[in-house]
Amino acid sequence: MTKPKLRIGLIGSGFMGKAHAFAYSIAARVFDLPFELELHTIADISGEAAVRAASALGFARGTSDWRSLVVDPAIDVVNITTPNALHKEMALAAIAGGKHVYCEKPLAPLDTDSREMAEAAEAAGVKTQVGFNYLCNPMLQLARDMIAAGELGELRGYRGVHAEDYMADSAGPFTFRHDPAGGGALADIGSHALATAEFLVGPAAGPITRVMGDCVTMIKERPDSKGGRRRVEVDDVGRAFLRFANGASGSIEGNWIATGRKMQHDFEVYGTKGALAFSQERFNELHFFSTDDRRGRQGFRRIEASPDHRPYGLFCVAPGHQLGFNDLKAIEAAGYLDAIAGRQPEPFNFRAGLRIQTLVETIHASSRAGTWKDVPRQIPD
Amino acid sequence: MTKPKLRIGLIGSGFMGKAHAFAYSIAARVFDLPFELELHTIADISGEAAVRAASALGFARGTSDWRSLVVDPAIDVVNITTPNALHKEMALAAIAGGKHVYCEKPLAPLDTDSREMAEAAEAAGVKTQVGFNYLCNPMLQLARDMIAAGELGELRGYRGVHAEDYMADSAGPFTFRHDPAGGGALADIGSHALATAEFLVGPAAGPITRVMGDCVTMIKERPDSKGGRRRVEVDDVGRAFLRFANGASGSIEGNWIATGRKMQHDFEVYGTKGALAFSQERFNELHFFSTDDRRGRQGFRRIEASPDHRPYGLFCVAPGHQLGFNDLKAIEAAGYLDAIAGRQPEPFNFRAGLRIQTLVETIHASSRAGTWKDVPRQIPD
Amino acid sequence: MTKPKLRIGLIGSGFMGKAHAFAYSIAARVFDLPFELELHTIADISGEAAVRAASALGFARGTSDWRSLVVDPAIDVVNITTPNALHKEMALAAIAGGKHVYCEKPLAPLDTDSREMAEAAEAAGVKTQVGFNYLCNPMLQLARDMIAAGELGELRGYRGVHAEDYMADSAGPFTFRHDPAGGGALADIGSHALATAEFLVGPAAGPITRVMGDCVTMIKERPDSKGGRRRVEVDDVGRAFLRFANGASGSIEGNWIATGRKMQHDFEVYGTKGALAFSQERFNELHFFSTDDRRGRQGFRRIEASPDHRPYGLFCVAPGHQLGFNDLKAIEAAGYLDAIAGRQPEPFNFRAGLRIQTLVETIHASSRAGTWKDVPRQIPD
Amino acid sequence: MTKPKLRIGLIGSGFMGKAHAFAYSIAARVFDLPFELELHTIADISGEAAVRAASALGFARGTSDWRSLVVDPAIDVVNITTPNALHKEMALAAIAGGKHVYCEKPLAPLDTDSREMAEAAEAAGVKTQVGFNYLCNPMLQLARDMIAAGELGELRGYRGVHAEDYMADSAGPFTFRHDPAGGGALADIGSHALATAEFLVGPAAGPITRVMGDCVTMIKERPDSKGGRRRVEVDDVGRAFLRFANGASGSIEGNWIATGRKMQHDFEVYGTKGALAFSQERFNELHFFSTDDRRGRQGFRRIEASPDHRPYGLFCVAPGHQLGFNDLKAIEAAGYLDAIAGRQPEPFNFRAGLRIQTLVETIHASSRAGTWKDVPRQIPD
Repeated sequence: MTKPKLRIGLIGSGFMGKAHAFAYSIAARVFDLPFELELHTIADISGEAAVRAASALGFARGTSDWRSLVVDPAIDVVNITTPNALHKEMALAAIAGGKHVYCEKPLAPLDTDSREMAEAAEAAGVKTQVGFNYLCNPMLQLARDMIAAGELGELRGYRGVHAEDYMADSAGPFTFRHDPAGGGALADIGSHALATAEFLVGPAAGPITRVMGDCVTMIKERPDSKGGRRRVEVDDVGRAFLRFANGASGSIEGNWIATGRKMQHDFEVYGTKGALAFSQERFNELHFFSTDDRRGRQGFRRIEASPDHRPYGLFCVAPGHQLGFNDLKAIEAAGYLDAIAGRQPEPFNFRAGLRIQTLVETIHASSRAGTWKDVPRQIPD
Repeated sequence: MTKPKLRIGLIGSGFMGKAHAFAYSIAARVFDLPFELELHTIADISGEAAVRAASALGFARGTSDWRSLVVDPAIDVVNITTPNALHKEMALAAIAGGKHVYCEKPLAPLDTDSREMAEAAEAAGVKTQVGFNYLCNPMLQLARDMIAAGELGELRGYRGVHAEDYMADSAGPFTFRHDPAGGGALADIGSHALATAEFLVGPAAGPITRVMGDCVTMIKERPDSKGGRRRVEVDDVGRAFLRFANGASGSIEGNWIATGRKMQHDFEVYGTKGALAFSQERFNELHFFSTDDRRGRQGFRRIEASPDHRPYGLFCVAPGHQLGFNDLKAIEAAGYLDAIAGRQPEPFNFRAGLRIQTLVETIHASSRAGTWKDVPRQIPD
Repeated sequence: MTKPKLRIGLIGSGFMGKAHAFAYSIAARVFDLPFELELHTIADISGEAAVRAASALGFARGTSDWRSLVVDPAIDVVNITTPNALHKEMALAAIAGGKHVYCEKPLAPLDTDSREMAEAAEAAGVKTQVGFNYLCNPMLQLARDMIAAGELGELRGYRGVHAEDYMADSAGPFTFRHDPAGGGALADIGSHALATAEFLVGPAAGPITRVMGDCVTMIKERPDSKGGRRRVEVDDVGRAFLRFANGASGSIEGNWIATGRKMQHDFEVYGTKGALAFSQERFNELHFFSTDDRRGRQGFRRIEASPDHRPYGLFCVAPGHQLGFNDLKAIEAAGYLDAIAGRQPEPFNFRAGLRIQTLVETIHASSRAGTWKDVPRQIPD
Repeated sequence: MTKPKLRIGLIGSGFMGKAHAFAYSIAARVFDLPFELELHTIADISGEAAVRAASALGFARGTSDWRSLVVDPAIDVVNITTPNALHKEMALAAIAGGKHVYCEKPLAPLDTDSREMAEAAEAAGVKTQVGFNYLCNPMLQLARDMIAAGELGELRGYRGVHAEDYMADSAGPFTFRHDPAGGGALADIGSHALATAEFLVGPAAGPITRVMGDCVTMIKERPDSKGGRRRVEVDDVGRAFLRFANGASGSIEGNWIATGRKMQHDFEVYGTKGALAFSQERFNELHFFSTDDRRGRQGFRRIEASPDHRPYGLFCVAPGHQLGFNDLKAIEAAGYLDAIAGRQPEPFNFRAGLRIQTLVETIHASSRAGTWKDVPRQIPD
């Protein structure tokens, strides 16, 4: 039985463009995908770069013209891994072209743009995906399942952080990530902390209903590309207090000037009967405390990723071997392809991406106002 | 050369009463104290309990009458380890009796009471101490020294937490710690997180100038002592955003319902050139990241407590042997005795204790108001 | 410029067969390989299984006839991932067919068979590879480079272990891994500990020259496939003391009944000026102690894998994202392909695989004799 | 009810002399000791030093004449903390004087001397103690209890190490620890690893019955006190394979040139149903794996010291506060005092100390011979 073909177009060949290409290659081997994938076309700024990228990443051809890519009838799915400000235009064009769209996070710098994208996709009936890859870790799925199953009892508190140091050097240049519209640490990586918080806790404690934001700019200006200096308005550290629908409370922090931290995407969840602790620095582990353990033998238990934790076993049949970052991305891609085939709901579609933007903007607004803000409920689709 | 005698009176023989008695015993062996200590009298609720405690803890006599203890001319220093609500009356009486006073934290449940105590002590010219023992850890002194010496560069961010689970069981009874006046997780243990934050960061980044509080009650009522139930108004979790005088920002959390946590008194400090990370769960270690390390060899370095870190070497001449909690308390006691002898300033006097109460109350007020509050500057003494 | 084709034949589609297939797929995306790879044929026991595997793993065709595969003129490289006892026959046939051969470890259960294979390959001039994948970790390469560069000073001591628990259940059946000829924990996983020891330490301290073995059978019999029980003669735990050419000493342990351990492939190396500690349980980290660090600031430093550590950066341009097990295998495959293209020496060829078998057998012999044994020097090629 | 007095004489005021003094002070506060302790006399080399030590450590008087101390009728217990070579003469004199004797480890450099001491004490009917303080850790007692109760199932394997770096510097002088009679890393700290092994495993797996030793001198000569150099014959690293009476096997290593290690007294024990892992570097924790945990939730569990683990609760009524090294020594002292009072058997008497010397010497003999040696059974008392 041959599988239907699915032809992929990819825009962008940088860090995330490569990650998408790697993800498809790995997913095609590891999973029993519903499609035979064809890496059809890759677009990059110059035609030369695109051709080089096509060769390196296994695409049949390269182009400097993303506009033709998104309407090419030979292409089924468009992957967007360009700078954030371009996501909207590209995605809307691809949706208009009837393509499924897999867009890197953030969906768009602004909530209103994200909404437009989500609504366009829903109106067009195409399947969408936003790349919040950390959620694809089997240990996060395990955590979510444990929480949903009540293994921690009733949830009470949450602490999340996503801290790195890639902007810690004040001599680093002004980039699109510093753009006043939609830039900053909260949007760039605090968004991961928010996504993880709702992913884990949502099914049990409901969504985040209120936030109090604290967004701080520490490096006030940076060199621009013209030899001058440019004022930075976006946050280097973005914090928020959180309220969940069930009354539980928590906090998150996004921080891109945390000297020494390379991937501190950590959380702790506390319930009436147990707790979980996790660090992306050791992401093949989940630490679990249970009051069900007998007295004198209680403690945080280091659960190592194993075939007991889906879909780890598809990558490796033995425990303890560990997944890498590109594997998480492959899990993300596989889930999306299953959604395109109708095997399951979209794991993290544009509306979910919009949700994160809404949270980010509400936190920004709260920070500016210096007061708590209700998080607008998502318009149901 | 014989040392002058210093006669100790101790009120309370519970957890902290014992800790004070242990601390004096250890300090007398480990340090070259300026005094010969005499454990003179211990007071407890019943005379019988007091006599038993005197015998167990090495005091010459026991009494049920703390009022006579605090005016006994044979006593030089009064240690107060009773429930918080009693601190003020006892301390004021002891100060009136001309005694030096060593009071467990919190100084008093209310800021105004704490101020009255601090001012009384200063007016009387007696030496005071409040028991924020975690600060006495050689690794915290090391951290403070490193920060002050600029080893982290300019400070940018701080994250502190003090989480335990001793109130996680909703069937646990209503206690003095739940008293609407001055109770709650923030006051009880969040205060440690605040004390540590200013202790470490203060010399380099200045004091905390503004706070935004988030205090949450999760367990709304608890059994009272009469078989009924009593409404709980104090916070189970108290969080705050912080601003320091130099513009650095941070956060702290106090949490007494963090299931599984026994002593999560942790902090992370980030500067332009380095970072520190610490957990009281492993309090003989300090983790240090430095951008001075060469490329490809950078990483958080686990510094183990050793004779290089004063006053560890007085306890043990070899590295790696580790101090315990009672040793921290002994360091606290020794520092206070040095202050009484005029060898050094008071390490953490009533005014410092007042400062913590001021921070706690400002955070409470901010939480109630839902807005940021300036922290009142301390009246200089 | 198009690359020459290299056509792959793979025998076996189990755990390691999959890992090879995944490795080629990942390597083709991540590395600038010297060849265009074609996954030509996969062989498995039944034709049906082979066809299924071909489809799943991306091979053009499947066959139940490995003998035709190894002489198929359309195939350039033969990968052998079958049970150990079959390695020799298959490899010799492939070498006779003029193929390059990439064989899973152990090369063969017996030293003499391994020697025959190594010599046949060398005589035929084909390129070979044995799968000691843990060596391909960028952090192990870093460790080796640091040791070779003298960052630890002169080497003095080594401690290695490879412990898992996949044979801990005494109800587990007798398998080929229990075969008296070449089976046992030392051969199966202790061999990894030996390979790592010489890989790291060899360039600085020379090869292992003498060993004292201690091989212990704890589970004396196991269920066989006929409902009976079969006596087990091979070791469940195999230990050895080691001497290196420079006089440094060390020890290793291979243990497959270490309840709770899933991948404890750990080592510690001590030199006059520094030390390294590593655990495969957290294999994206290397812990480094240096006496060059200033007094009072020394400690083991947790270096996280980053683009500074080749070839991590090809997988991910940012630090802290982490490689997984299949990525290590891809690095192994890429190195082998470079060797086939003449770009570099074979990373771990049959002679290196023979070396490990020699070490294992010498340890076995030493254990039986109860005395130290000299390790036969390898015949130079 | 007043307690009988027990008068202490202490010989030596260095590292361990202080530790004994501290231990008595702490024990007197923390435990309900059977005696009122009187720190009667301390002896040191010079009278001046002795008087200074007496004052610092709380003894009533100091003397340079240990011979009069050990026969002073006013003294009940003699503590010996002098260099190893002096232990025997002092202990025999004290025993002859009818004193109870508490001697630092090793009991004596030679097995025969240790035997003479043990037999003399038994003949005299005095109570003895040897200072293997790490055994007094509540977490080690917990480990022993768990093993004895079968929580790990049947024991199969053991791995122990005691590594430090206090002799790593080859410029360090020749000391009594390098004495050909009884010196070396195995005797000095490997002895701790041996004591821990039998302490933990003995009740369940029986004593160590056979050993294979590997003792290595890496630093061949050291500066002597006369400006010359002296040849070193004792081991810098001492390893052993072990067999226990029940057939379980294991290994230990003692290493005093392990650069960077300050207190790596670690062990792992593996049984059919579970495992324990421990490091003295974090000695208020014990890590426990149990196959009784449900599938997908198994992992090593970090048990933190708490009042559930006797006698932690006497030091601190709340979990997570941690004991320090001097507290371990206080537990040791308290157990010994209980033994003197007849409340319990001697925790680790001279015969137990002899046992360790026997193990050390058998390992040395095995190492010299290059073959396994049976461990002589102790003559029952």
